Amino acid sequence: METLLIKNGFVVDVINKENSKIQDIYIEDGIITQITKNIKKTANKTIDATGTVIMPGLINTHNHSAMTLFRGYADDSELMDWLENRIWPAEEKLTGEDVYYGTKLACIEMIKSGTTMFNDMYFFTEDSAKAVKETGIRAMLGRCIMAVENDDDERIKEAIDIIKKYKNDEFIFPCVAPHAPYTCNDKAIKMSVDIAKRYNVPFHIHLAETKDEVEIIKKRNNVTPTEYLNSLNVFDTHTILAHCVWLTDNDINILKKSCANISHNPISNSKLGSGIARITDIIKEGINVSLGTDGAGSTNNLDMFEEMKICAYMQKAKNLSASCIDAYKIIQMATINGAKTLSVEDKLGSIETNKKADLIIIDTENIKFKPENDIFSNLVYVSNGNDIKYTIINGKVIYENGKVNNINEKEIKEKCKKISKRLL
Amino acid sequence: METLLIKNGFVVDVINKENSKIQDIYIEDGIITQITKNIKKTANKTIDATGTVIMPGLINTHNHSAMTLFRGYADDSELMDWLENRIWPAEEKLTGEDVYYGTKLACIEMIKSGTTMFNDMYFFTEDSAKAVKETGIRAMLGRCIMAVENDDDERIKEAIDIIKKYKNDEFIFPCVAPHAPYTCNDKAIKMSVDIAKRYNVPFHIHLAETKDEVEIIKKRNNVTPTEYLNSLNVFDTHTILAHCVWLTDNDINILKKSCANISHNPISNSKLGSGIARITDIIKEGINVSLGTDGAGSTNNLDMFEEMKICAYMQKAKNLSASCIDAYKIIQMATINGAKTLSVEDKLGSIETNKKADLIIIDTENIKFKPENDIFSNLVYVSNGNDIKYTIINGKVIYENGKVNNINEKEIKEKCKKISKRLL
Repeated sequence: METLLIKNGFVVDVINKENSKIQDIYIEDGIITQITKNIKKTANKTIDATGTVIMPGLINTHNHSAMTLFRGYADDSELMDWLENRIWPAEEKLTGEDVYYGTKLACIEMIKSGTTMFNDMYFFTEDSAKAVKETGIRAMLGRCIMAVENDDDERIKEAIDIIKKYKNDEFIFPCVAPHAPYTCNDKAIKMSVDIAKRYNVPFHIHLAETKDEVEIIKKRNNVTPTEYLNSLNVFDTHTILAHCVWLTDNDINILKKSCANISHNPISNSKLGSGIARITDIIKEGINVSLGTDGAGSTNNLDMFEEMKICAYMQKAKNLSASCIDAYKIIQMATINGAKTLSVEDKLGSIETNKKADLIIIDTENIKFKPENDIFSNLVYVSNGNDIKYTIINGKVIYENGKVNNINEKEIKEKCKKISKRLL
Repeated sequence: METLLIKNGFVVDVINKENSKIQDIYIEDGIITQITKNIKKTANKTIDATGTVIMPGLINTHNHSAMTLFRGYADDSELMDWLENRIWPAEEKLTGEDVYYGTKLACIEMIKSGTTMFNDMYFFTEDSAKAVKETGIRAMLGRCIMAVENDDDERIKEAIDIIKKYKNDEFIFPCVAPHAPYTCNDKAIKMSVDIAKRYNVPFHIHLAETKDEVEIIKKRNNVTPTEYLNSLNVFDTHTILAHCVWLTDNDINILKKSCANISHNPISNSKLGSGIARITDIIKEGINVSLGTDGAGSTNNLDMFEEMKICAYMQKAKNLSASCIDAYKIIQMATINGAKTLSVEDKLGSIETNKKADLIIIDTENIKFKPENDIFSNLVYVSNGNDIKYTIINGKVIYENGKVNNINEKEIKEKCKKISKRLL
């Protein structure tokens, strides 16, 4: 049996705030078996976490991870120009090997900055899966589907193959991932709903990202994007809805009555000029909201701490209210709410006995954290991805001393540099 | 003669973007004397900056640095509640020694995260000055002035003493710092204008920070806060205007015709629920805009890289436009525009021969920067204060290998912890 003992860290409880305190954590074969003060057992490995904060690994609920290859490319240009004239032509040239390396770089970046699971929508999904397996992170993967004309569409077949292959995997969780209302037709959406129901996997889609998208769907279908999806019975399934910047009251009402989960992407939404989502309104209605980075092509880095900060700042600025959302709520969004979004909250998203040991240890010795008047405030408003000291996934320390285990970082960087040069 | 040679870094030119390239920098007695490829001279100290980015030290144009003592205290509460019921009562108890330690902690934090000069408004200014001198950072200091009743007001005397003492100092630059239109009376503003003119120092004030402030001044003076200051001839002097969230078109027009410089504080403005300033409109009118953190009581950390990021995100979200501001413009705001705001652009704010050598070296080897498709994008959208490798002020390396020279960080942390416990 493999055991890990973590001593004396401040353990953040994302279910019950008051229960957060300095404790030890004992892990057996990847499962948290004890959380209490002063555990006397021995273990294969012991970490002295004195003076640190331990929180559940961050869950990034919307990403296109291979887009690290496009980091910083054509920044500060308008969304449609950026997509149509820059990103899509570059993506045309992508090979499976490119996606493997771009995803692998993203996985390393995420592990180093405290993310232990992410939700990905892209192409060459088998190559992404390989990168995920090799780095030791967890991922929900969906083969991106756009408009479908024929019943025997290759992309649909690929999507189903991935689902079948990984249905019972411990690290890869399959989903079905139609791109967006404006890039899919009825057939693509209907087939995706059917797959989601047949295989009992989540349905991951972009929704109401921009004002333009709303206009397009209104013109095409005479309803909002949310109403359009609703008319095709999408919300009978467990949905992961990325962005949701432009929701009407009626849209929110539809989502409220459904199994909808929102992946809020504050940096991408602002950096691309899409807008500020009505997150506090949405939360008030009881809809589950988690956080995601979107691809590094638009967000530039995959640091979930930045998403936490910017989520808080944007909502407070939009509502002209400092108290409309608080640090603890934001921490929940990045952890347990993320687990709910990806339908894995029975085993991930919080530090509790019998849950899987995906957790991160944050070094709060840097002077920027001092004096330490509020640990939750520090996590949201002061920490960033560079402050991570250890990342533990499935009970294994996969990042420590600035290095991800068994990874030749230099090789990945050089490969990605070459690929990026060829593509851009 | 003290000499420093920096080899092979990518030198960011904040005056002419195209001129940014890999070069060496030679520094003699604190002055940059040569910037070119392949400098063959010897020096007392040589830094191999291969694979790094060298940029001018960041200039934080609005701070209350001793407020590090209140970091994370009463976060997520509404501005007036936070000020009146939490911060002001705590500030009542402050001693000069407290301000010395709080400021010293702030100086260390700033040096470590790449700031080489800051503009401070607070009390016990002599104690702040001591902290500045001991850490080696540069600062503009102004003794905060509120409503004044008598000609021989003690605070005014203190303000003048500071100005006289530091008028020709190389590290401390005095200014006059009336707090805000709503906390000052006519007499305080008029005496401050008089001091600014008599001693030829900048006039630093909060302006139009909140909607409430605008209402208060409208009720009291029947004009906007900017119109009020204008009626007292404030804008005949070199002004540093912090926040400026709620400017009307007429306000912008007044500032446009004046010597106004705006210190934009995007994190504080959003975190306190004040709003998003009309920065792109203001820039279009040719008004100089720089960046500031405000105190760590509201901003939580003093990382100017976060201000850069959030300035960009907020403007893009507000304007629903990804192209309304770009990374290079943001870098200028944090450097040369900051020097203009503090009226030191003849000697600071850019890496040019004959300017003082205040510069920072950023380690861009972290995988989050790769592939490196755009260095300016990386600086704004990826870097944070933890990525600083060296901070150089006046030609001296004062931060390297994670340590600020001649500083016992542990002692400062412990002192501040004790003080903070007493105050809060």
